This record gives sequence, C-alpha cells and structure tokens, in this order.
Amino acid sequence: MIQISSNEINSYKSLTLKNNTNLIFTNLAQPEMAIKDSLVFISSYEMAKTALNNQATGFIVLEKIFIDVQNLFTDKQALWTTQNIKASMTEVLKSFDLATKPNQKIHPTAIIHPTAIIDHHVTISEYVVIQENVVIKSNCQIGSFTLIEASAVIGTQTKIDSHVLIGHHCEIGSRCHISSHTSVGTDGFGYFTDKTNTHHKVPQIGYVIIENDCELGSHCSVDRATLAVTRIKTGSKLDNFCHIAHNVEIGENAMMAAGFMTAGSTNVGKNITTGGGVHLNGHITISDNVFLAGNSGVVSSIEKPGIYGGFPTVPHKENLKIMASLGYLPKLRKQVSAILKHLGLDSE
Amino acid sequence: MIQISSNEINSYKSLTLKNNTNLIFTNLAQPEMAIKDSLVFISSYEMAKTALNNQATGFIVLEKIFIDVQNLFTDKQALWTTQNIKASMTEVLKSFDLATKPNQKIHPTAIIHPTAIIDHHVTISEYVVIQENVVIKSNCQIGSFTLIEASAVIGTQTKIDSHVLIGHHCEIGSRCHISSHTSVGTDGFGYFTDKTNTHHKVPQIGYVIIENDCELGSHCSVDRATLAVTRIKTGSKLDNFCHIAHNVEIGENAMMAAGFMTAGSTNVGKNITTGGGVHLNGHITISDNVFLAGNSGVVSSIEKPGIYGGFPTVPHKENLKIMASLGYLPKLRKQVSAILKHLGLDSE
Amino acid sequence: MIQISSNEINSYKSLTLKNNTNLIFTNLAQPEMAIKDSLVFISSYEMAKTALNNQATGFIVLEKIFIDVQNLFTDKQALWTTQNIKASMTEVLKSFDLATKPNQKIHPTAIIHPTAIIDHHVTISEYVVIQENVVIKSNCQIGSFTLIEASAVIGTQTKIDSHVLIGHHCEIGSRCHISSHTSVGTDGFGYFTDKTNTHHKVPQIGYVIIENDCELGSHCSVDRATLAVTRIKTGSKLDNFCHIAHNVEIGENAMMAAGFMTAGSTNVGKNITTGGGVHLNGHITISDNVFLAGNSGVVSSIEKPGIYGGFPTVPHKENLKIMASLGYLPKLRKQVSAILKHLGLDSE
Repeated sequence: MIQISSNEINSYKSLTLKNNTNLIFTNLAQPEMAIKDSLVFISSYEMAKTALNNQATGFIVLEKIFIDVQNLFTDKQALWTTQNIKASMTEVLKSFDLATKPNQKIHPTAIIHPTAIIDHHVTISEYVVIQENVVIKSNCQIGSFTLIEASAVIGTQTKIDSHVLIGHHCEIGSRCHISSHTSVGTDGFGYFTDKTNTHHKVPQIGYVIIENDCELGSHCSVDRATLAVTRIKTGSKLDNFCHIAHNVEIGENAMMAAGFMTAGSTNVGKNITTGGGVHLNGHITISDNVFLAGNSGVVSSIEKPGIYGGFPTVPHKENLKIMASLGYLPKLRKQVSAILKHLGLDSE
Repeated sequence: MIQISSNEINSYKSLTLKNNTNLIFTNLAQPEMAIKDSLVFISSYEMAKTALNNQATGFIVLEKIFIDVQNLFTDKQALWTTQNIKASMTEVLKSFDLATKPNQKIHPTAIIHPTAIIDHHVTISEYVVIQENVVIKSNCQIGSFTLIEASAVIGTQTKIDSHVLIGHHCEIGSRCHISSHTSVGTDGFGYFTDKTNTHHKVPQIGYVIIENDCELGSHCSVDRATLAVTRIKTGSKLDNFCHIAHNVEIGENAMMAAGFMTAGSTNVGKNITTGGGVHLNGHITISDNVFLAGNSGVVSSIEKPGIYGGFPTVPHKENLKIMASLGYLPKLRKQVSAILKHLGLDSE
Repeated sequence: MIQISSNEINSYKSLTLKNNTNLIFTNLAQPEMAIKDSLVFISSYEMAKTALNNQATGFIVLEKIFIDVQNLFTDKQALWTTQNIKASMTEVLKSFDLATKPNQKIHPTAIIHPTAIIDHHVTISEYVVIQENVVIKSNCQIGSFTLIEASAVIGTQTKIDSHVLIGHHCEIGSRCHISSHTSVGTDGFGYFTDKTNTHHKVPQIGYVIIENDCELGSHCSVDRATLAVTRIKTGSKLDNFCHIAHNVEIGENAMMAAGFMTAGSTNVGKNITTGGGVHLNGHITISDNVFLAGNSGVVSSIEKPGIYGGFPTVPHKENLKIMASLGYLPKLRKQVSAILKHLGLDSE
C-alpha cells in the first residue's frame, strides 16, 4: 500500500503550504472518489465540499479560488495552494505512481552482443535482444521483448517499454520515453515503378534521430530516411498511432495527438500542436507555431504561424464558418433553383 | 483432416433438422467453392443449385426460402433450416475451426513471478512474462511474447493472443478476447505546457478495466487513466486499430469498426455502433443507442439516440443530403455569380 | 566502414559509364551532405556544383541534364549517367545498406516444432516461435520475437521482421517483406447481434494468402476470412498502418500509402494506387487501374479506371473543384440571402 507523508508533498516546488499537518495519504483521488486519507486537487467550491464530505484529508487548491473555500477547512486538514493544477500534477502524481521502479539489473534471459556497451544503472528486462555495437547510456530502462538493432544508441535516462523495435544505426536521445509496440527505423515506403507497373523497392539506407526529451506513444512508426536522417527534434511528444514517414523532420516541442500521419520528406517547424487524426502531405513545409485542428488534412505548405483546420486546410476561423455552412448546403441548392426559376433563368 | 459428423451439427440449437443422414463433412464452404463432403449455408435458390452442382452433401437453409428449394434435395443430403444464417454460423463454424486448441500447460520458457496466482486449466505459451501479484483465473489462454505487468487481473476463460501488453494494475474481465499487438494500460497523453512551450508529463497513475465479454482487435491501445479508471463496459467489441484515450468510458455492447479513436475523458453510452474511421473529440458525452456512420468526426456531445454522420456530425439523413449536395457546389457558385450579374448586384 | 569500389557500382545495369576511375566510396549522400569519397545522385546543375564543392568523387547524373553539367567534371571523378535516378537507386543503394546481412543460422533460443520444415539457408533470429507443420522455404529471414503459427507457409527469400504474427494456415509468397509489428491472420470482425443487442462472435475459420513479391509495412493487420481466403495479390506494396478486413481481395501491384483501411468483403482490382488515409467501404468492388487521392472515402463501387478523390468519392477533377469551392460556401450563403431579399423572396 502506498503511504505518502504530507512532508513529501510539501517538498514539491509548485505548492504553497497553507496548513501544516503530519498526515499520511494512501491515495490521490478525484473529489467524488475520495475516501479517508485521500489527497485531492480542488478547483471549485463544489469539489471542495464533495471531497470534504468524502473525508479527504489533503487538499491542493487552485490559488485563485482559495479565498472562496478557505473557511471550509479546519486545522486538521493538510492544505496547499497552487497557481496551476496541471503543473502541480506533474510533480505530485509521481509520489502515487504504482509502476514498478527500475531494478537496475540485466535479466539473465536478455541476449546482449558482447560488443554492445551498457552503461551503469541500466535496467534490461526479460527477453530483450541487443545487437552488436549498441550503446545504452546510464539509467536507461529497456522493457521486455524489445529489440535494439546493431549500432543503435540510447541516451541517458531513457525509458523504452515492451515490444519496441529500435532499428540499426538509429539514435534515441536522453530522457526520452518510447511506449510499447512502437518501431523506430523501419523502412521508408519508396519504390520505382517501371512501365509494366511493377514496383521496385528503393533500399532505405538512412537512419532516424529522436532528440532529447521526446516521447512516442504506443503503436508509432518512424521510418528511416532513404539516404540521410528522419528526425524528431528536442522536446516533441507524439501520442499513440503516429506515422512519421521517411526523410521527415519534426521541429522542437511538437505535440501531436493520436493518429497523426505525415507523408515523406515533409518539414515541420517547432511548436506545432495537432488535434487527433491530422494528416500532412509529403514534400511540404509547415511554419513554426502552427496549430492544426483535429482531422485537418494539410495538402500544401503552411507559411505563417497560426491556427488552421479543414481539408484542404484554411485558417481556423474560416474553417469554422465553412463547417457551420455545410449544413445549409441542401437548402442553398433549393433557394438558388427557386431564384433561377423566379428570374426565368432556369433553362441556363 | 477435419471430420465432422452430421450428428455434431445436429446438436446446435439454432438448427431445425429436415433430413437425417449419417454423413461426415470435411469442410464448410461457400456454395461456389463447395466440393464433395462440404457443408454449406444456403440463402437463395441459386446458391442451392451451385452447391448441389459442386456435390456438397450438407445444407443449412434459410427457413424463409426453404419452400423454394426443398424439391432440389433428395434423402441423400443432410438438411437443416435456420431462422438466421449468421446466428447459426456462430455455432456451426466452431466445429470447423482449425485454430490450435488450448493445451492447458505452462510452457517452460514462460517467466512467472512466484507471487503470481495462476488458476487451473490455464494455457501459457512460449516466452510469456508475468510479473508480481498478477492473477490469472481458470481456463485462460495467454499467447507467446505477451507481457502481463504487476498486479494485473485476467478473468476466467479469457484469451489473450501473442505480443500483447497488459499494464500494471489493469483488469480484464471473463470471456474476453484481446488480439495480437494490443496494449492495455499504456500511459495517457497528458502534459503541462509551460511558458517556454516545454511540455512536462503528467504521470498517469490510474488504470484500465475491460469488463466481461469484451473483444479488442489487433493493434489497439487503451490508455490508463490519469487518476481513476479508463473503462470499457460489458460486451463491447472493438475492431483493429482502435485508440481509447485516458479517462474514457465506453458503454455496454459497443461495436466499433476499425480505426475508431476517441480523445480523453469522453463518455460513450451503451449500444453504440460506429462505422470505420470514426473519431470522437475529448470531454464530450455520447447518448445510449447512437449509430455513427463511417468517417464521422464528433466534435460535441450527442444527447439523443439516433443515426448520425459527417464532420461535424449531424443526423444521418441531413448528412446524406449534404454529401449529395457537395458535388453541386462548383455549379452553385457559377449560378449565384450569374444571378448577381443578371441583377446588377455583382459589384457588391 | 563501408568501402564500395567504382567497379561494383559499374556492374549495375541502370548506369552508363562516362568516366572510369579506380575510386573507393565510403558513403552515398545527398549533394549538400556530401564529403570526400561520397557517391552522389545529380539531377540539376546546382546539385552538381554543391556536390563538387563538398568534394564528392562519384557522380550518377540524370542523362537528360548531362550535357549541362559535363564540363564541371575532370577525369578524376567517377561518372555515370542514368535515364531515371529512382530506378538506379533501386540498384545502387543496396551496396551502401548497413542492415545486418542474414547469417543463415537458427538461433538456439528459437523454439521450432519438430514437425516444422525449415529449408536451407534460412535465418531464424532470437526468440522466434514456429509451431507444428509450418513450412519455411529456402533463404528466408525471420526476425526476433516473431510467431509463426501452425501450418503456415513462408515462400523462398521472404524477409519477416521482428514482432510479427503469421497466423495458422496462412501463406506468404516468395520474395515478400513483412515489417515489424504486423499481424497476418488475426480474426475478422464478425458478429451476430441478437434482440438484446448482445454480440455473438462468428468464428473466423478461413485464412490469408499474401502472394509473391508483396510488402507489408509495420503495424499492418490482415484479417483471416470467415470461410475462405483474404488475399493480397502478387507485387502489392502496403505502407505502415494498413487494415485489410476479412474476405477482402487486393489485386496485383497495389500501392497503398499509410493508413489505408478497407472494410470486409471488398474486392480491389489490380494496379490500384492510394494516397494516405484512404478508407474503403465493405462489400464493394474497385475497378483495375484506379488512383485514389489522399483521405478519399469510397462509399460505393468504382466501375471505371481513373483518378478519384473526396468523400464520397468523385472523379478527381470534380473533387478539386469541390474542394476549391468549399472556402466560398459562407460567402455564397450571404450572397443568396442578399438575392432573396433583393427579390422580396426572403419570406419563403
């Protein structure tokens, strides 16, 4: 059972202590699920009431509503404020994470080529295969059934989950997280089609670089470049089911929701954010600081920062108008027919 | 070789015996592929003729057409009727399934933590990894290269295929089927983005519950909740490539075709059916008894049962009109231009 | 380090020798990345200048621009021409491929059923599982953590990457490539739904045939047929994340970009090409020689060869007009309102 002291919570820098106690919390819960010894986040008066009714004992309250709720509490409850609930969640939730801690051991069933270099404090799980000349830097965790092919490099403190493929000569940065069933360094989709419509494969001899602090969800594919590098730059986060084709470059701090797909050789600037199911055409360029609404289909380059949506993509506000107008299209047809008839133009 | 007696077929409750014989069937085929000793399903006069020409010997005939075809048969053929072909297929096809039967053994290469509880009649295949405090109930089958993380629970008679991940503390009900390459309990996609556009991960410390009688196709991802539970309720069936984000709840008896994706914290009622490639926005609610046509993109909550389609989603009949009108849009532009010109309004 | 002689390059039939030297190339690079001892492909004057500035020493020049650039070179550079850069890449890139060559050994951790037949010169990697009665023909390569179920057949010279599932009784042709995390022979999505909205599984007892010279990207699913065969015909290439449902037939020489999905029982003719994210409805037929633009959603059969796009799909040129008109829709609404008002028809 988890037992977290109020002192541990107090150590997080996003929190301001409002009432000191010596409590132990056994769980972190939403107000409606709270029980005795729960720690809760509070961003409204109703949430505070609910959590108190459920006998929660620890409260992290959004600072701007603290004045509204402070009278609800007594000195028996542990009390903190935060300027941003989500920011404090990035700290506080770690204390309550039940995921197995790395054991910094190499499981005897792992097959590691003698030329591979495994740094200190690395955890390698059951049935991992690591090929020749691989380098795995300190404090990495490699999950079960993961294959790291020849000459790949894994940076420090990177966590690779189960059933992952890191292809030969690919490089993963430091503090990255690669989720289960993701493949990095699969072949790009490149063919020469001859006059008989037979498709001949163009060997894909490039590689992939995932820079520092990147995260890939489960079931992602990042294809190796034809000649050079497919690259995902520092700090980018990709949700599940993302497809990054060969020769693509994704800029720093990308945030791609699930189902993002880009065709080959496309160049995406930094700070892109995409809703779910966004598709990019190949061989285009996307400016820095672009936001793409869910289901956007980007056919041609986007040269200016801004919010875009639709297929083909237009500025977001225009797209909202188009989407709102779509429902009127059948009526519009009838109206135009009526006008043409009224004007005697309907034979045109 | 398969050898199924007419007596075994006769035992299925969806069938009514019309002519008893002592035949042996070696295969179950479509009428045009039938050979000697085939058992066939018949829902038209033409199918009956075709199958007879191909010397099929067993016939399961749709009851409502039996009167039209009964004269085609002699007392040498085995003959049954059924009120619903598909219903009888759920029974009859089992007899002809060539899939390997569970051997109720634990393969010596399986790595099972001593604290895991494995009930009787469980099949565990090659290279399975089962972590501490896992519970696997009776008559389960676990496929090769599957990882079941700490404290997960698998209900009775559940079949998990190869290359699956069941994450820590997740629960799978009884009589479920999880297909290959699916991951249950991967991290939700949650970040706090600071003023420098750096994304900080919110630890995902909740879990996943898949209730009884659910099926997940291959390549699905079900993300664990941030704090509480991501839940798929009893009797729901998901096709391949479905993405269920964190904190989502899917109601009973869902039927999701391939490529279904929902963003986080969305609540779907019971009896939903979706065509292929349907996407749901996050933080919305979908009523019970909703049908969503293929490629629907649901932006906001759907409050009433019914059939919907389009992006944004509207009632299905409206959407059919909109889709039918889209092709007229270029012509409509020309007509409106002509009208404006005709009326002298084209300078506006 | 790679060391490729100009004589080896000279052996490729797509090249015409223009200047013979005895050079050694250590890499193949894009002109802007070239270094000393690089071999480069040149299709413009600027590329030739750039590569020469970077001291590249080998040049494969597009024949039709050779007259423009030939004066740039001296007899110190190795020089070839080609009629088609991409065609020559299919040959030349092989020399520079760093992927591990097959070692034609069976790793001792592979678990191979005694009844399986493994032909000569087969490479079987770590932790592979091969079930009873499987046949693997000569010169195949099977990647780590791949499961080949009972009675499956793998043709000669086929390469199956890591983490792949080939289901029981499925057949893969010769010279195929199946990428990581792909599953062939998973169950089709077939249910009988009774009056209580309970879904009963129809057992899927058919199989899958992938014919010769096919390639499947990573994260593909090809479902087995209900009764008969799901088939992908000779020479077809599927990118990552393709979903082929039960009973589907894909014709010869298909070329499907990532995210292609087809519902069940659809029949696709030969020589289809699809852009990214194309979805096909079930139970439809697509003619030979069809090109579908990216994001197409095909609702009903396509009976004539041609280029199509949109959702619902229409001939490509019409779709371009529709997409170009969408942006005018809000304006069109206003114009029609103004006309109706002008004509005194706005109360209709």
